[in-house]
Amino acid sequence: MDYEIFDLGDVLLQSGTTLPDAFLAYRTYGTLNERRDNVIVYPTAFGDTHTQNEWLIGPGQALDPERYFIVVPNLLGNGLSSSPSNTPPPFDRARFPQVTVYDNVVFQRRLLHERFGIRRIALVVGWSLGGIQAFQWGTSYPEMVERIAPVAGIAKPWPHTFVVLDSLRAALLSAVRFDEASLDRLTSADMRAVGRVYAGWGLSQAFYRAELYREMGFDSLEEFTAGVWENSFMQMDPHNVLSMLRTGQHADISDNPAYGGDFDRALASITARACVMPGSTDLFCSADDNAYEVRRIPNAVLQPILSVWGHFAGRGIHEPDNRFIDERLKELLAYGADK
Amino acid sequence: MDYEIFDLGDVLLQSGTTLPDAFLAYRTYGTLNERRDNVIVYPTAFGDTHTQNEWLIGPGQALDPERYFIVVPNLLGNGLSSSPSNTPPPFDRARFPQVTVYDNVVFQRRLLHERFGIRRIALVVGWSLGGIQAFQWGTSYPEMVERIAPVAGIAKPWPHTFVVLDSLRAALLSAVRFDEASLDRLTSADMRAVGRVYAGWGLSQAFYRAELYREMGFDSLEEFTAGVWENSFMQMDPHNVLSMLRTGQHADISDNPAYGGDFDRALASITARACVMPGSTDLFCSADDNAYEVRRIPNAVLQPILSVWGHFAGRGIHEPDNRFIDERLKELLAYGADK
Repeated sequence: MDYEIFDLGDVLLQSGTTLPDAFLAYRTYGTLNERRDNVIVYPTAFGDTHTQNEWLIGPGQALDPERYFIVVPNLLGNGLSSSPSNTPPPFDRARFPQVTVYDNVVFQRRLLHERFGIRRIALVVGWSLGGIQAFQWGTSYPEMVERIAPVAGIAKPWPHTFVVLDSLRAALLSAVRFDEASLDRLTSADMRAVGRVYAGWGLSQAFYRAELYREMGFDSLEEFTAGVWENSFMQMDPHNVLSMLRTGQHADISDNPAYGGDFDRALASITARACVMPGSTDLFCSADDNAYEVRRIPNAVLQPILSVWGHFAGRGIHEPDNRFIDERLKELLAYGADK
Repeated sequence: MDYEIFDLGDVLLQSGTTLPDAFLAYRTYGTLNERRDNVIVYPTAFGDTHTQNEWLIGPGQALDPERYFIVVPNLLGNGLSSSPSNTPPPFDRARFPQVTVYDNVVFQRRLLHERFGIRRIALVVGWSLGGIQAFQWGTSYPEMVERIAPVAGIAKPWPHTFVVLDSLRAALLSAVRFDEASLDRLTSADMRAVGRVYAGWGLSQAFYRAELYREMGFDSLEEFTAGVWENSFMQMDPHNVLSMLRTGQHADISDNPAYGGDFDRALASITARACVMPGSTDLFCSADDNAYEVRRIPNAVLQPILSVWGHFAGRGIHEPDNRFIDERLKELLAYGADK
C-alpha cells in the first residue's frame, strides 16, 4: 500500500446523510517545513487515484518534492477513499450516499489541519474534477489558499458538461434498463459502453482527424477505442463511477450555505491568485466556460493549453502540454513568493 | 399513407448480400416539367422520414414546388424504406443486412430513371446523413448532378464522427451487454440511453450555456433531455437505429470500386457546383472536416451556418439558420441556371 489513511470518523455529508467511519486515502511527497507553509494540495480527478497525478511531481518540476510538501488526497468514491466499493452495509454499492466536491474539500481541510497542523496552502492544483476541487478550495477557504490552478476544470458543471456526464451515466444505466432496483447487478463489464461514450469527449476532433492514436502505438481506431477506453473503464467499479459522476454533476462551488447558489459571488470570493488552464479543444470543460469564470475572479489569468488533446491536454500524456502546465505552475508559484 | 413505394426487386447490396423484394419509400412535391430537368433530390437523415424534411419545401422558398419537382427518398433502415422493422425473415430485425450510402444512392437513381425517366438533377440537398448522400450523388453520378448542397454532412465518417456514432451504438448494445446473440431482445425502451448520449452531441456548448432549451418551452435541462432526446429516440426501432448507425459509420464516398478508398480522388471527381454548409458549432460533423473536403472539390464553396445550434443548425428548428440555408440554396440554384 503506497498511501496513508486519514480516519474522518462519522461525517455529516452535505446531503444530510451521516456516513459512518469515513476516511480519506492520501499520499504525500516531500517534507513539511517548519513554518508549515510549503504545502501544495493536488486532489485527484474522476476515476483517478494519486498514482495518476505523479507525472506532475518531481525534482526540477514546479511540484518539486525537494522544496514542497505535496499532499494528494484521493477523491471520495474512487475506490481508495470512502467509496461504494469499500463501505460496509447499509451504505455499500448502490446505497453509498451522495458526496459533493464541497464535502471532499471540507474533509481535505480536516486532513491538513488535524494530521499536519497546516493553516496555509501555497497552491491547490488539479485536473478535471480535481480542478473543480481547486476552485472549491479557493471559495470555501480563501484565508488558507494562496494560489489555485484548475487544469481542464470548471467551477460548476455547466449545462453541457452536465449533459455529457449524464450521457456516461445513461450508458451505464442502460445495462440495467434504468431500473434503480437492479443497480446492484451492475458489474465492471457494464462499463464498456461508458468507455466508448467517453472516447468521443476525451479528445478533440483534430486529434482523431490527425489519427494521433497511432503515435500512442495503436494501429487502428478500433484498437484505440477498445484498448484504451473500454479497458480503462472496465477496470472501474460501476458504483464508484456512478458516485463520482454524481459528484461531478453536483459540483457547483456556490451550491452551499455560504453562497446559496450565487455562482458569480462564489467566484468573486476567491482571493487566491488563480491560473486557469483549459484545454483549448476540450469538448466538455470548455475554455469559454473558464473564461466566464476568470472574468469574475479578482486575481485570475486564463492560460489555455493550445493542444489538440482535448480534455486530456491536462492529463500528463502529451509532452508539450505537460511542459506548458509545468511552466505556468512555476510562474504561479513565483507570484508573490517573495512577500 | 402520405408516400409512395418504389419496388426495387431483389437487390445485390454493396456488402455482397442480396436483399429480396427491397423497396424505397418516397414522396414528391411539385410537378416534373416536360424537359424533366426541374428535379431536386432531398434524401432523409438518420432517424428521419420525408416529413422531417418538409420545413425546407414551400412556395417562395428555394425548394419551391411550384417550380421544382422535389423527390424525397427515405433512407434505407428508417422504417419506411426497406428496414429491419419491415423486412420478413431471414432478413428481419438484427438480421437485416448492412446497407451503405452508396447502396441508397444507386437505388435512388433507379427510382428517378425507372419511374420518372429523369436524367438530370438540378440539386441534391440533404442534412447530416442526407448530406453524405448529396456528396455520394456528386461522386457516383457526376454526369447527372448539377449542384449539391450538403448541410451539416460530411463526405466520409471522419474518425471522430465514427467514434461518436460508435458511442450511440454502444449505449444501445449496453442494454444486451454487447451480446450479439441477444440483439433481438432490444426494444424501443432501450433507446433511452442513446437519446441521452445524443443530447451532448446534437447541440453546442454555447446552446446549453445560454439555456436556449428554455426558448423551446422546457423549464429545465432535465425536462429538455428527457422530453426531447429520450422521447424522440424511444419512438425509434432499435434495429432500424443500429442499421442507420452502421450506414453512417461506413459512408465514405470513396469506399466503392470506382475510387477504391481514394477519398481525395472521389472528392475531385465531383463536377457539380457544391455549396457546403456546416454548422459552425457542430461537434461531430465539423466545419473543419468540410473545409478539407471543399478544398478538394473543383467547384465548391464553404458557407458555414453561424449558429450555436450545433448539428441541429441544419434541422429546420431555428429561424435564422433556416433563412440562411434557404438563401444559400436560392443562390446555388441561380448559379449557371441561364446557361
